[in-house]
Amino acid sequence: MPYAAPIADMRFALEACADFWSLRQRFPDLDEDTLAAILEGAGALAGETLAPLNRSGDQAGVTLKEGVVTAAPGFQEAYNAFKDGGWQALAADPAYGGQGLPRSLALAVMETFHSANMSFALLPMLTLGAIEAIEQHGATDQKALYLEKLVSGEWSGTMNLTEPQAGSDLGALTTKAVPQADGSYAITGQKIFITWGEHDLAPNIIHLVLARIEGAPAGSKGISMFIVPKFRDSDGSRNAVRCIGVEEKMGIHASPTCTLAYEGATGWLIGEENRGLAAMFTMMNAARLNVGMEGVGVAEAAYQKALAYAKERKQGGALIIEHPDVRRMLMTMRAKIQAARAICYATAVAADRGDKAREDLLTPLAKACGTDVGVEVTSLGVQVHGGMGFVEEGGAAQFYRDARIAPIYEGTNGIQAIDLYGRKLLGDRGEAMGVLIAEARQTAGSHHPKFAAAVDALEEATAYMLSAAREDALAGAYAYLQLAGDVVGAMLLIQGGARDSTAEQAAVLRFYARTILARAPSRMAEIKLGAAALTSEDFAG
Amino acid sequence: MPYAAPIADMRFALEACADFWSLRQRFPDLDEDTLAAILEGAGALAGETLAPLNRSGDQAGVTLKEGVVTAAPGFQEAYNAFKDGGWQALAADPAYGGQGLPRSLALAVMETFHSANMSFALLPMLTLGAIEAIEQHGATDQKALYLEKLVSGEWSGTMNLTEPQAGSDLGALTTKAVPQADGSYAITGQKIFITWGEHDLAPNIIHLVLARIEGAPAGSKGISMFIVPKFRDSDGSRNAVRCIGVEEKMGIHASPTCTLAYEGATGWLIGEENRGLAAMFTMMNAARLNVGMEGVGVAEAAYQKALAYAKERKQGGALIIEHPDVRRMLMTMRAKIQAARAICYATAVAADRGDKAREDLLTPLAKACGTDVGVEVTSLGVQVHGGMGFVEEGGAAQFYRDARIAPIYEGTNGIQAIDLYGRKLLGDRGEAMGVLIAEARQTAGSHHPKFAAAVDALEEATAYMLSAAREDALAGAYAYLQLAGDVVGAMLLIQGGARDSTAEQAAVLRFYARTILARAPSRMAEIKLGAAALTSEDFAG
Repeated sequence: MPYAAPIADMRFALEACADFWSLRQRFPDLDEDTLAAILEGAGALAGETLAPLNRSGDQAGVTLKEGVVTAAPGFQEAYNAFKDGGWQALAADPAYGGQGLPRSLALAVMETFHSANMSFALLPMLTLGAIEAIEQHGATDQKALYLEKLVSGEWSGTMNLTEPQAGSDLGALTTKAVPQADGSYAITGQKIFITWGEHDLAPNIIHLVLARIEGAPAGSKGISMFIVPKFRDSDGSRNAVRCIGVEEKMGIHASPTCTLAYEGATGWLIGEENRGLAAMFTMMNAARLNVGMEGVGVAEAAYQKALAYAKERKQGGALIIEHPDVRRMLMTMRAKIQAARAICYATAVAADRGDKAREDLLTPLAKACGTDVGVEVTSLGVQVHGGMGFVEEGGAAQFYRDARIAPIYEGTNGIQAIDLYGRKLLGDRGEAMGVLIAEARQTAGSHHPKFAAAVDALEEATAYMLSAAREDALAGAYAYLQLAGDVVGAMLLIQGGARDSTAEQAAVLRFYARTILARAPSRMAEIKLGAAALTSEDFAG
Repeated sequence: MPYAAPIADMRFALEACADFWSLRQRFPDLDEDTLAAILEGAGALAGETLAPLNRSGDQAGVTLKEGVVTAAPGFQEAYNAFKDGGWQALAADPAYGGQGLPRSLALAVMETFHSANMSFALLPMLTLGAIEAIEQHGATDQKALYLEKLVSGEWSGTMNLTEPQAGSDLGALTTKAVPQADGSYAITGQKIFITWGEHDLAPNIIHLVLARIEGAPAGSKGISMFIVPKFRDSDGSRNAVRCIGVEEKMGIHASPTCTLAYEGATGWLIGEENRGLAAMFTMMNAARLNVGMEGVGVAEAAYQKALAYAKERKQGGALIIEHPDVRRMLMTMRAKIQAARAICYATAVAADRGDKAREDLLTPLAKACGTDVGVEVTSLGVQVHGGMGFVEEGGAAQFYRDARIAPIYEGTNGIQAIDLYGRKLLGDRGEAMGVLIAEARQTAGSHHPKFAAAVDALEEATAYMLSAAREDALAGAYAYLQLAGDVVGAMLLIQGGARDSTAEQAAVLRFYARTILARAPSRMAEIKLGAAALTSEDFAG
């Protein structure tokens, strides 16, 4: 059975859990029928065009020859269908051809693409990042030059952060930018792990590149962002950026992960000098949310495949779905997906509503919980298949391999935990989290004792994180993020049930409350573990 | 850094935790120096010969051409070194060239091979299964014919259970055996997922095959076990068993997973008619323990690689091992490995001691906990590496791919949970588990309150499992197995600390108690969830 967009679950998560229609006043032209039509159209593209290329793309991978990267067979036709459908334009500014729809709706659409073909979906995801960066930080002439073609999908975009000597530590990057007489900069350096950094699906690629202007301060305060088009704007000539390597990866084989060599490439400063990191973070926040969605998307695909297998495979005379342990696995998959989906959508709705504090607070949860769910659920998907799960032909294995990147890129999940603690919690001394906890407590009321207990735990844990020594708080940050994710997921499922109660969603919530929320005490133990407990002779120099 | 056998950890787990020297009277010739020399010799073979072939074997895989399977480059030389070292003979009967050493020691030796090269180690693991089956069920002439050459490693062995239409459901198998005039049987049918079912490393392969004698009862009571040598004993002619396919798998690429076609192959009944399943279970129990060990082995390899990476990789000016969240991941890996290792060794020591009840009880724990740890720890290993973890060159990805099979084969972990509940717990109405709980309670004494609470939980959960309706118990069986594993792991670590206390092992125990044992309440919630909670509209026909 191929992937089919789970429209009912998506709509419940978006409209009931994430309170999508709180945006009605901001988007007066949008109605239920339009929303349904958009999701169904996306689901059709995902199920009929992208999903059939998932396994063949995994097998074919990409090829690099003399700097030219060739995508897997069928990807050009799929990209054309995506582009012609106007899917890149959903949430973009109408001034540049966008449709001005909510980002939360665009995110739900992206979910279906992530489910159907994670490798493919990375291309529009990165382009979206470039669009947002230019929308928010570009000068008027830069917007005029690039936005329309990015929004239409004619051109694609990339993010260039990582360098060989500097992984997550952007302050250590050394790519340099030398001012030229015409106002441009000559960019020189090497960038690694550039997703869709080079390919043949679009006639131009717009690279957004972090580099250091000659004489800029050391560290992260001396980093600027540049636009480096693959083909120069002035004369259409090939710019001095070359793909010199493509990684051999465990998964997402159809998505080229490039090493790009910049050799005096023409770049244009975007935003202010030495403020590149701030600009990149705007872009990265959206990307983080989208990566969380990606985790949910691949999890959904794995769930559907496992469910179909369990309903057709006989064992001991009965379908394996009759076995309680198989049902346990499937129910775990179902509940975790639905909670993580609600978190991702709610983060985007907060952004659409202009609730920056909530958006910022939820973004690390969406990224880390969504991608952890991706890994866990795809692993359960393999397990449900038994031996066939380990054989590539079955498809479950690919989901497992593909999903494993998501907790790593756009800031590892460990970095998300540090972000939640350092920037989000300490940043406002717990104010935004306090608002969230108050909302959760109100949601709990007197009808949800298990949830109320988890909210109490989150409150206690928050007080601990705010008062603990930094090293101790960091030792507990991951478990804190997990507890917060458990609570927010349950809160959204309960709120969803209050807005639109169905027996099915109520069953999912009950399972979630009885299993996942029961982990609050052990999360607390891990939160309060303290740095001193993380000591081993093995760790010594 | 290549793999180095963790001799200190292994000896602590074997001698202190698993009480290896309780076997002293049974093995009077064995002393500490011999034990150390054997482990160090195994570690040398593993680290110097097998580990260097792990990545190249993954890349090269195996080839099948006209029925001939060719192993990856270097594997012949490695197998020769293994054979010449006499490693297959460790625990075998001295009457057939074995060294008559404890199976627990042989298991510890196997751990190092699993760590170094999971694909390679499967070959001696399967041969070991064949040796044990023939030792326990073979007639005198069968022993004379096969054992010496299997024990020396000259020939290898296989287990043939699964058929395309019958995965874990052995009662459904259809391979048939027709009696011949000379007392042999003509075996006809197809077997799938046969590990090292065909290869070029040994001149003969001894297949142990489940099949149904013409006219035998239906279901599992009509299954017999046969010895089918690749080359016939009588005249050395090629037997009618052919490899007609090799699976394309997610991992263990260097180990051929074969589809074998039996076309009237000459086979010899081993053990009694229609009692093949019982014979196969003897063999499978040993194999299950070894697969648990395999999970621990690949986890250890992943831990060592992640630890080395964390100690050399700088991020933000500091080594990443200085980051509390990285230490949290490494400490989690370290503690889970050590507990699961102790469980596996203790299972083997129970077998060596002749404590069948304890061996039977612990076998599903060793298999499921060891392999779950394999998946979890290799995933953390990828995460510690960041982006490099997803790139195949780094090696962490291979461990993650390889490890994923272990919770599936030799009975999925879900089947282990059913085994623990159905055969082990119901089988003696909780007697063996009661003995274990009493020992755990004594171990807890008054010094280990967290452990005592977990023991209480296990006791309560055991009472529940014994009294619950079957479907409800099955719904909670997996969590029950996990809780039992947590408790047994902690018990063995505490007992180990009492026999040989070091600051390092005490730190591991403290971490284990404060994090893993803290999960007992949520395990309990999952145990008592009940079958009715596992209901979704999605699951309906």
